[in-house]
Amino acid sequence: MTAKKKSIDLLNDPDQVGLVVPRIFEHKEQFTVSGGALENFHLAYESYGRLNDSKDNVVLICHALTGDHHAAGIYSPEDKKPGWWNHIIGPGKPIDTSKFYVICSNCLGGCQGSTGPSSPKPSQPGDSYGMDFPDYTIKDMVKAQKKLLEHLQVKEIFAVVGGSMGGMQALQWIVDYPRFVRKSLIIAATARHSAQTIAFNEVGRRAIQGDPNWKNGSYTIDKGPGVGLAVARMMAHITYLSDEGMEEKFGRETRAQVAEGFEFSVESYLDHQGQKFIKRFDANTYLKLTKGLDRFDLVGENGLHESLKEVESKVLVISFSSDWLYTPEQNKLIVKSLHRLGKEASYLEIDHKLGHDSFLIDSPNFLRAVRVFLQGMDEGERLMQNKAGFRTLSNKYEVKKEADFKVIDEWVKPNERVLDLGCGRGILLEHLRNSKNIKGLGVDFSGEKSTSCISREVAVYQEDIRKALKDLKDDSFDWVIFSRMVEELEEPGQVLLDALRVGRRVAVSFVNHGYWKNRLQFLSRGARVQNEVYPDRWEASSLRNHFAIKDFEQFCVKSMQKDQIFKMGRKVFHRGDWVKKCSIWPNLRAGLAIYELIKV
Amino acid sequence: MTAKKKSIDLLNDPDQVGLVVPRIFEHKEQFTVSGGALENFHLAYESYGRLNDSKDNVVLICHALTGDHHAAGIYSPEDKKPGWWNHIIGPGKPIDTSKFYVICSNCLGGCQGSTGPSSPKPSQPGDSYGMDFPDYTIKDMVKAQKKLLEHLQVKEIFAVVGGSMGGMQALQWIVDYPRFVRKSLIIAATARHSAQTIAFNEVGRRAIQGDPNWKNGSYTIDKGPGVGLAVARMMAHITYLSDEGMEEKFGRETRAQVAEGFEFSVESYLDHQGQKFIKRFDANTYLKLTKGLDRFDLVGENGLHESLKEVESKVLVISFSSDWLYTPEQNKLIVKSLHRLGKEASYLEIDHKLGHDSFLIDSPNFLRAVRVFLQGMDEGERLMQNKAGFRTLSNKYEVKKEADFKVIDEWVKPNERVLDLGCGRGILLEHLRNSKNIKGLGVDFSGEKSTSCISREVAVYQEDIRKALKDLKDDSFDWVIFSRMVEELEEPGQVLLDALRVGRRVAVSFVNHGYWKNRLQFLSRGARVQNEVYPDRWEASSLRNHFAIKDFEQFCVKSMQKDQIFKMGRKVFHRGDWVKKCSIWPNLRAGLAIYELIKV
Repeated sequence: MTAKKKSIDLLNDPDQVGLVVPRIFEHKEQFTVSGGALENFHLAYESYGRLNDSKDNVVLICHALTGDHHAAGIYSPEDKKPGWWNHIIGPGKPIDTSKFYVICSNCLGGCQGSTGPSSPKPSQPGDSYGMDFPDYTIKDMVKAQKKLLEHLQVKEIFAVVGGSMGGMQALQWIVDYPRFVRKSLIIAATARHSAQTIAFNEVGRRAIQGDPNWKNGSYTIDKGPGVGLAVARMMAHITYLSDEGMEEKFGRETRAQVAEGFEFSVESYLDHQGQKFIKRFDANTYLKLTKGLDRFDLVGENGLHESLKEVESKVLVISFSSDWLYTPEQNKLIVKSLHRLGKEASYLEIDHKLGHDSFLIDSPNFLRAVRVFLQGMDEGERLMQNKAGFRTLSNKYEVKKEADFKVIDEWVKPNERVLDLGCGRGILLEHLRNSKNIKGLGVDFSGEKSTSCISREVAVYQEDIRKALKDLKDDSFDWVIFSRMVEELEEPGQVLLDALRVGRRVAVSFVNHGYWKNRLQFLSRGARVQNEVYPDRWEASSLRNHFAIKDFEQFCVKSMQKDQIFKMGRKVFHRGDWVKKCSIWPNLRAGLAIYELIKV
Repeated sequence: MTAKKKSIDLLNDPDQVGLVVPRIFEHKEQFTVSGGALENFHLAYESYGRLNDSKDNVVLICHALTGDHHAAGIYSPEDKKPGWWNHIIGPGKPIDTSKFYVICSNCLGGCQGSTGPSSPKPSQPGDSYGMDFPDYTIKDMVKAQKKLLEHLQVKEIFAVVGGSMGGMQALQWIVDYPRFVRKSLIIAATARHSAQTIAFNEVGRRAIQGDPNWKNGSYTIDKGPGVGLAVARMMAHITYLSDEGMEEKFGRETRAQVAEGFEFSVESYLDHQGQKFIKRFDANTYLKLTKGLDRFDLVGENGLHESLKEVESKVLVISFSSDWLYTPEQNKLIVKSLHRLGKEASYLEIDHKLGHDSFLIDSPNFLRAVRVFLQGMDEGERLMQNKAGFRTLSNKYEVKKEADFKVIDEWVKPNERVLDLGCGRGILLEHLRNSKNIKGLGVDFSGEKSTSCISREVAVYQEDIRKALKDLKDDSFDWVIFSRMVEELEEPGQVLLDALRVGRRVAVSFVNHGYWKNRLQFLSRGARVQNEVYPDRWEASSLRNHFAIKDFEQFCVKSMQKDQIFKMGRKVFHRGDWVKKCSIWPNLRAGLAIYELIKV
């Protein structure tokens, strides 16, 4: 699938990469891969933009299984088919070639210009390697890319970016060269192939190997196992799409555009994909590449955290909601492991219905995420921040919005580790980082707010709070913050106890439902309390668990008696204006309460 | 996948069908199928149990794509492999052969004893039909089954039951012979193949047809397209399982039990499935059968409701949460359409992780659903009903539990159509049906409670209330009932308005939060109200939207002014004891309120 076609001038539009020229890097020395040694190798590559003087603006793009190095631009003024990520790479685009020096190479073991199974065998240049090409893995691809970068005199990668198999490379990069890469953007990938994915690949391999023209890999170019390779591609192609996406595109359409010999559009579409593929791809390469993928396993026997323990890069993992090949759960696993190691890692799940191939689609939420991860705050976020009503630590007109932030700000000490549950746009964590150099992690269920966090360079985990807490390690934070969001939780008591497993201290701020004005209003009106802090009318409200200081204290006392997990620390109460403090009769007089719970 | 092996004596255990003998039915006349005519046909079949005197105890079992007529029992005392649904069929089992006369036939066009592409061609008995066998569909299979039943002198089917392709037959049965079938149990099926399913089938067909041994279908038995057929089966087998199920079964296991030539267990497992399959199944039959499935389309151009409009049977559709071949959504579509036609249909979604093949697994929730749909109330439900605390209309000790039921019972008139949102175990609808012959539909999100409804012969739609309301047709009910569950809804106002689209009248009962005791308690304690009707402590509570009579009336007045969709009808208020009525100052004095809203 390619990006939506717009009426763009691929040659002259100012945001287009324009004409590009593929190059070949030749590594002339012996090179060891997992299954043996190569006497030398070539990598085909392209680059866009320019290396800056400080040589710190390199963005490395890694392509997917059957992709190539032609990520952006066109080859001639007449060329109508730009590179596969042309909508993301270019001047002013998310991967901005006016800022970054972008490099993309065809992977080692590929068949689009790099050395692989279809390349001539050095000992018998008339023949290709075929199945004699040594087995290779993602690790070998990354090692070869490193040689290319050395050749280009690159000393540091600002960011490595890849989707699908490219995401696995982006992950392998930060494992193998932790100090060489500043940021890693891993998209729609996995830390290892699941049984289902191995199964699909195996069926594809069996289709190729069962084709009599395969001849154990020693076919000639003009008579390869086209039938088997097409079947393999057709099947794989289904896994790149989603049920919903296919249904929308084809449904049961049987008439329009169905070529002769086919009954349903989807059949003719798949056939076309298969036929197109066998013209551009080599069967032995497909066999070797899929085996390499199946063997990719950073989890192994010792767990993913063991593989990731040297990681120093900032990581963002992006998954797509409808991706059933490398599912959100599989992507999330990478971030979970990094968090358990105390590393800075973010996770976003983009709501997109086109399945695995969503990463190739021009979709605004995904593009924004790529942009802000690489470039920081964008225009949208700046506009949002200037809006009245934006919760901040500096907007003097919105005292209520910041009252609890200020207290928490006083409590947190420099360099502490802070987990903010329901972090919204990451304002508090951004402030604490800038003022106190804390190490923060936010959790929010909203993709849009989580993307805002990324734009502030605040690490964020887009996830349900309960699930996120389960994933985090004991005592991995100095502070766990619930800023006015406990009301939104089911069984809040258990969530608070879970937070005390993860953090040494918990800060909880909440609107005190027991405030005297609420009581009087309820007494006299006999209807739900409604005012500035409880703005929703009943009929339009979401579900809530409002509570009073008294409820909270009763819970704390009961819990402390029962389990002795925590003791109560500081308490701050604000009166109804959320400015003046109060200490006597807080349940009656306070509008806002902030509590510190300390693990014992 | 077969049922879990238990230590059972397949021959002598009292709940076993024991020895069975397959039979052949011979239809000697010409028989037309969608793609042509057969001079005659055979169907292989088995039966278990006995036809009763009133001849109304026939249960017809329809098998899946590659299944057969051997659904239960064994062929010899030494036989260790009983029929494919042996755990469901037998004396005392969900399909109870001490009550039912159970029949299962190999489908027309199959290759396990019935006439199909692998059968001898009448004009050239030395050859088989092969691809000359006329195309056939689910409809033809059902028509042939009907002939078998006529031969067996069956005048009426008590229930037709089938999973996967068998479910499509069970659906086709009630479309084509609406007055012949009393109940239809459609499991893990669909009303038409989606683009994705067609795509998978097409890849399988291409693998077979691409095998040089296929020879356009004129292969000989000893040299068929085994490689292609095995690839097709391997791929299809992946779609029968779930990602999670495969991960649990195989993961990345590479050592134990992996046959030579394979790297991962899952590869060797799939190979085994493929090899086993080519020994028992015929390639041309596979091609024809999958085409028949792909062409199955009861939606067509006029919509599913058009196909289903003559249906008279009671229908239960069961899907499995992890089935991604025939998804819950696809199964649900059948029930939605039946509801839009005002037919009696229930939907259950069984939470099971093994994917499509879950219907072949011995799992208690599924087996219970089959049992109660066929046999009515079971022991578990009776025990539950005798429990203290069970909400009922007769338990005098639990006045509060039935207070609103009694009012609603007075309002509903005989023969009306009643939708109960959040129906729980279906007590109210059961009572209204028994006392007033109403036509009811319950909606509940709990699978366990929905199964209880089935056991009471109360039609139930296991679904989120908001989604269920969206699916139902305008004015399709006389009453929509919310019995003490509006508190659990987000934006309850909109849900009430949606209900007024679907029903002519809405009955809403709720606990009045404005009751004076609540107000006084909140005033004096300043903590969340806690008492008999609000039992949860804050820390352990789920999210709620408590409201008062005043809130409700304000919403109604505002809505009526704005849209004039409804007017308020009767109101009944109970005092704090939920027994005595009260009419003056209800917001202060009433503990329970029941309102009638009438569409204008």
